[in-house]
Amino acid sequence: MRQINDARRGHKAELIKRVAKLEGVSSRFIIDGLKKGTIVIPANRLRNIKTPCAIGKGLRTKINANIGTSPYYGNVSEELKKLDICVKYHADTVMDLSTSNDFKAVLKSIIKKSPMPVGTVPLYEVAVRAKEKNSSFAKTSVDDIFFAIQRQAEEGVDFFTIHAGVTEDVLGLLKKHGRIAGIVSRGGALMAKWMKKNKRENPLYENFDRVLSIAKEYDIALSLGDGLRPGSVCDATDKPQIAELKILGKLARRAKEKGVQVMIEGPGHVPINQIEKNIKLQKKLCNNAPFYVLGPLVTDVAPGYDHITSAIGASLAGYYGADFLCYVTPAEHLSIPTLEDVKEGLIAYRIAAHSADIAKGIKDAKGWDKTVSIFRTSRDWKRHIKASMDPEKAEAIHKRFKTETKDICSMCGEYCPLKISEKI
Amino acid sequence: MRQINDARRGHKAELIKRVAKLEGVSSRFIIDGLKKGTIVIPANRLRNIKTPCAIGKGLRTKINANIGTSPYYGNVSEELKKLDICVKYHADTVMDLSTSNDFKAVLKSIIKKSPMPVGTVPLYEVAVRAKEKNSSFAKTSVDDIFFAIQRQAEEGVDFFTIHAGVTEDVLGLLKKHGRIAGIVSRGGALMAKWMKKNKRENPLYENFDRVLSIAKEYDIALSLGDGLRPGSVCDATDKPQIAELKILGKLARRAKEKGVQVMIEGPGHVPINQIEKNIKLQKKLCNNAPFYVLGPLVTDVAPGYDHITSAIGASLAGYYGADFLCYVTPAEHLSIPTLEDVKEGLIAYRIAAHSADIAKGIKDAKGWDKTVSIFRTSRDWKRHIKASMDPEKAEAIHKRFKTETKDICSMCGEYCPLKISEKI
Repeated sequence: MRQINDARRGHKAELIKRVAKLEGVSSRFIIDGLKKGTIVIPANRLRNIKTPCAIGKGLRTKINANIGTSPYYGNVSEELKKLDICVKYHADTVMDLSTSNDFKAVLKSIIKKSPMPVGTVPLYEVAVRAKEKNSSFAKTSVDDIFFAIQRQAEEGVDFFTIHAGVTEDVLGLLKKHGRIAGIVSRGGALMAKWMKKNKRENPLYENFDRVLSIAKEYDIALSLGDGLRPGSVCDATDKPQIAELKILGKLARRAKEKGVQVMIEGPGHVPINQIEKNIKLQKKLCNNAPFYVLGPLVTDVAPGYDHITSAIGASLAGYYGADFLCYVTPAEHLSIPTLEDVKEGLIAYRIAAHSADIAKGIKDAKGWDKTVSIFRTSRDWKRHIKASMDPEKAEAIHKRFKTETKDICSMCGEYCPLKISEKI
Repeated sequence: MRQINDARRGHKAELIKRVAKLEGVSSRFIIDGLKKGTIVIPANRLRNIKTPCAIGKGLRTKINANIGTSPYYGNVSEELKKLDICVKYHADTVMDLSTSNDFKAVLKSIIKKSPMPVGTVPLYEVAVRAKEKNSSFAKTSVDDIFFAIQRQAEEGVDFFTIHAGVTEDVLGLLKKHGRIAGIVSRGGALMAKWMKKNKRENPLYENFDRVLSIAKEYDIALSLGDGLRPGSVCDATDKPQIAELKILGKLARRAKEKGVQVMIEGPGHVPINQIEKNIKLQKKLCNNAPFYVLGPLVTDVAPGYDHITSAIGASLAGYYGADFLCYVTPAEHLSIPTLEDVKEGLIAYRIAAHSADIAKGIKDAKGWDKTVSIFRTSRDWKRHIKASMDPEKAEAIHKRFKTETKDICSMCGEYCPLKISEKI
């Protein structure tokens, strides 16, 4: 891989050193993971990332926050505020999924300001450009698609979602098999529409080598999108989903052979009892490439709370081996997220990632819990709150009701078990 | 069991019939579960419960909401408002944990108004009564304790948490073993204090037959409290916890022999990877008595969000076989919950229980998801929102931003994958 070759030549040694230090592992461990394809470092060679991250086996579970405008809401200033929230609440990466007319300005600003890796779905740019010309995505040419990929690579994007697995065969299976929720991926739906209109194979699949060349040139990590991820727990782990995953596994192998970093995107909506199977299957079919999951949501019934329905699935997925969790906000299925939604989504996902790290035995993960618990047990409220994930919220709740003495809270008062048992 | 004997005599046949209908199982299935001790129906014979519930193997996972005053906050009117929220958001049971001076009035009002089973921890009444007399819990007599149990039984309480497992042996183990977070159960801490002060064995343990007599008389279900549940993921599944669980298993057997309905309370704070083991151990040691878990929280670091840290654990616990989930609110570890906190806790736990039911294959559990997903896929917003868990919140989020046509939302706009793929 280019990153490895660079490392050998000393160019990227610094980046590897930094991520190794952040993880508390050796550079050798990172280099081995890069070689095996079990670790990626999304970092466009044009960018100087302040807080880079490595994603993959043996490392802390990472979280991504999707930000960006929609045709109906958002602008540069709003998205930069979302980015500030991502920094404040410790996202590891952000994806700019903008689809407004000023998408170029938004992406440029986010890349300029973001201290962390930035990802995109280049197809969205293709769709917005087509709209600008009063055309539609289905009428775009293969060159239009690669124009956007190339442009975003030059802009400095660190990782791309590429929907190359939605092939004619897979769509045939979907038609035959049927589903409750059809296609719920924007990139997947756009691609399926293009293929139907043009009666042609998926252009990203057919021209995958062209994708690889650009990715290699800029050292962009590819994230192979799951255009047919299930959008209902009733559709989970069905034939179209697995057929696409098999194709992604083959494409991942080709990427690896070409020296391009690659990870695989995964569902979606999956019942708790199918999560382990989904992770094991991805690892097996994709040669242990890092797995980047969206949730999964463990039930479909709670729009407004999908940060919770999906954090349940994400924590389990992380425990079973998913490496990278794409957050879901309370606005999922209903609206574009607000600043507050971004925060809520991020907190839910930090909880998911951290609880997964404790469970899978990531070194020192439990240390944070120990610290918080020691302060809690001694009712050292100031430190307890300061050490917690969201000190502002914890403090606001704690201060709501006054108590006679400061070493108890308004829940138990003098019947505080910690205070009582301390004296025993 | 009394409930069985009653059923045989036709007295409680109606109650069994009603819970069977609610669950979509036969009365025979419920009766068999009651006989085996794998199902309980908390229902004081003095009460006429409008929405009774059965808890246990093969049934929907149930959720309990803790309400009640603290020494610093709450009163009859406030607690009845909390009860209204419990009804609105479908709690299966409530526990009144009041510790204010007007605890009697609160309990009476809750029992009178609650359409669902009501539980308590009678020790709290003992503690408040002692305080009223300017005394302390440690100075109360065994008769004082049984006075409260008898009084609450006559008041109509449907299930009691009884901390009979905190024995001298177990406390010795705790002292020897050490812990980050000591004793985090109020009942457990009060009992340990009493035992130390009086240099005597746990009076609920020593007089367990007396507890059983009262429970049998009123057909109150016992919930054997885990006074030594871990309060930090660092303490999970430690020797004191397991030693107490073994005692609870023996007490459960005694209850069953006497014809008293019994369930077992469980942790607490448990890392994801230890949850399955905890459930299996309880089932084994307690002869498959229903397991009533508090969460468990899968990390200690997020006070302010413990409805989420614990809903993750609760959904997994439910999947592995826990029967009854005690909710946790965002105020946990910080303050007494407000009305809004009660709602947030309940929603998180309905998500946990429902996702567990899908995963463990409870009949028709997925039907709700199918309905919501069908409406979602057809962008029938009105029905989608109406069928969801919290229509008010879903609608508020959906309406935030306007779109040109009504069949899309402000997230994807015209790039709505469902709309695009519908046309394919």
